[in-house]
Amino acid sequence: MREEGQRMNRVYNFSAGPAQLPVEVLQQAADEMLDYGGTGTSVMEMSHRSAAFTQIIEDAEADLRELIGIPEGYSVLFLQGGASIQFSNIPLNFAKPKHGVADYIVMGQWSKKAFSEGKRLITANKIATSEDDNFTHVPDLSDLQVTPDADYVYICENETVHGLKIWNLPDTKGKDLIADLSSCFLSEPIDASRYGMFYAGAQKNIGPAGVVVAVIRDDLIPTEDIEGVPLLCQYKTEADGKSLYNTPPCYGIYICGLVFKYLKSLGGLEVVKELNEAKAKLLYDAIDDSRLFNGTAAKQDRSIMNVPFVTGNPDFDARFVKEATAAGLINLKGHRSVGGLRASIYNAMPLEGVQALVEFMDRFEKENA
Amino acid sequence: MREEGQRMNRVYNFSAGPAQLPVEVLQQAADEMLDYGGTGTSVMEMSHRSAAFTQIIEDAEADLRELIGIPEGYSVLFLQGGASIQFSNIPLNFAKPKHGVADYIVMGQWSKKAFSEGKRLITANKIATSEDDNFTHVPDLSDLQVTPDADYVYICENETVHGLKIWNLPDTKGKDLIADLSSCFLSEPIDASRYGMFYAGAQKNIGPAGVVVAVIRDDLIPTEDIEGVPLLCQYKTEADGKSLYNTPPCYGIYICGLVFKYLKSLGGLEVVKELNEAKAKLLYDAIDDSRLFNGTAAKQDRSIMNVPFVTGNPDFDARFVKEATAAGLINLKGHRSVGGLRASIYNAMPLEGVQALVEFMDRFEKENA
Repeated sequence: MREEGQRMNRVYNFSAGPAQLPVEVLQQAADEMLDYGGTGTSVMEMSHRSAAFTQIIEDAEADLRELIGIPEGYSVLFLQGGASIQFSNIPLNFAKPKHGVADYIVMGQWSKKAFSEGKRLITANKIATSEDDNFTHVPDLSDLQVTPDADYVYICENETVHGLKIWNLPDTKGKDLIADLSSCFLSEPIDASRYGMFYAGAQKNIGPAGVVVAVIRDDLIPTEDIEGVPLLCQYKTEADGKSLYNTPPCYGIYICGLVFKYLKSLGGLEVVKELNEAKAKLLYDAIDDSRLFNGTAAKQDRSIMNVPFVTGNPDFDARFVKEATAAGLINLKGHRSVGGLRASIYNAMPLEGVQALVEFMDRFEKENA
Repeated sequence: MREEGQRMNRVYNFSAGPAQLPVEVLQQAADEMLDYGGTGTSVMEMSHRSAAFTQIIEDAEADLRELIGIPEGYSVLFLQGGASIQFSNIPLNFAKPKHGVADYIVMGQWSKKAFSEGKRLITANKIATSEDDNFTHVPDLSDLQVTPDADYVYICENETVHGLKIWNLPDTKGKDLIADLSSCFLSEPIDASRYGMFYAGAQKNIGPAGVVVAVIRDDLIPTEDIEGVPLLCQYKTEADGKSLYNTPPCYGIYICGLVFKYLKSLGGLEVVKELNEAKAKLLYDAIDDSRLFNGTAAKQDRSIMNVPFVTGNPDFDARFVKEATAAGLINLKGHRSVGGLRASIYNAMPLEGVQALVEFMDRFEKENA
């Protein structure tokens, strides 16, 4: 009963990313490690141009298109370099290098990083921000002052560190919306047609680090070589090569594909969203009912993926993390830039994990009353 | 007896990359998939800043340094984007963008691609080539006409498609040597101090696609921001961040680390080289003794990792590939750009695999006499 033994040792992992994956997916990956589908090889050992891997990447794309409902006219790319290299590639591809203009909404660590890299490469304007309030809320997006010659408006729709979610996409006044969805990808249905591009690093909701899924409206992809820009930083290269210009991160794509199939088996993104809302409600209710714990994000902007909270006492926070770890609830420390506590409850976190956390919080509060 | 069952189904995989991995490594990865070292998580689920992953990446670096004997003053980086993005990053980091100058030795598909990308970004000179002879040999490197103001000399030390190996590093007349070692990495001992930088895509000799190992002499790494170049294309970013500027391809690095430990357990690179030479001798002897098969690379330049050969009859080649596949010897088709046959016999190919191939070749030749 090796599998049972492995399962029993598993902890609830509240890491913001790389993050917990569905145990069913990990089990399948383990079972297929030495022989995928009778090929006699691991997926790690397959030529990226083999029939077996072609099926894997085509299935992954088809399942993703079905899950989200991606319309015709959008390319799905599997990329490398993390979300961070998209921070460079987006301005270099969608605005004219050096001379282009784009608008950024800055509401947490990740949009701030994207903006900072945008400023290195083009004229990037910060058109809305909540930085003065320490990113405790989404800035007012009701009447965006979009720059007339901006090539796009950039958002990070769910800020992982600060636990903020844009629940209503802004009116970008006709400009293309480019969105980093890394930490809310496939956590709920979206209307893909609202975006010029959306993308996600895999290591939060869909797979291992080292894969980025990017969905780009085809007319935005430059048709000419962009002078001075590395070929692999040009979306045209990856789009023309159908993500196989060079060897892609095959094993990561395979895991993402297994996760997509798993989400389909649950019933799709409407069902996934209900599960996520139930988990988030349980945790936020516990925080709101507590006299020890306080959420740090404005209620109307709360993420249902990343839940930052504090006791207000760093010693208590540290003790909480330590005792939770001993209880099998790991990675509850807040991001090093903000401190406090954070529970990331992505798709793969079962309700039981959040129940265990809430019970632990209750016990901790009583013991420290 | 699940493990035994899996082993028995394994084929001999002669893919040029992604390529066969040691079965011991795959078995360990499968066993640890749901619970790495008692952490209760998969390596795929670990924060890249966790204690467990820190140990994994530090061990991988230390084991690599020990295997190769990397001297002080060189950084070891684990990167993304494949060897192909290094084709851009090398000119952008080591020569002045647009205005820099570098020399390239072009002796096969990969050095040609690197040169082509170099030309896009700087003044790249082709100072030696065997292209007119269809890359059937290494060009004469005995008295390189190095450009006086060149910032480096670039080689691909083992050409995967054409099966060529530079067995004696050229005198670069004081210029820094930059080498793509992807398809011969860790196949033999090297003198690291001869190189300004060497690097390798993982998917041939050391792990899954999606990881590049780069070893760079520290004084070559630019100390200032390079204008207009994506932050993650600057080696400074990755060196300063110790490969953790953003989330690295953690799982791939873990597999590379397991391979490094496996190579150490064999006795290190001297032993690995002996094993590789024995395998290559067996195969080349069979080709040279055959009246049907002919090697395509000049004898003195033969790679011991990639062995291209032909029957001279495309129909025979195709039948050979088909019947070999049925016999459990897969991926023997030559690269689509050159046709014919190719057996890649990297570190992880056991001698038994080459014996099985040689026996199959002999049988095929007799049946088609």
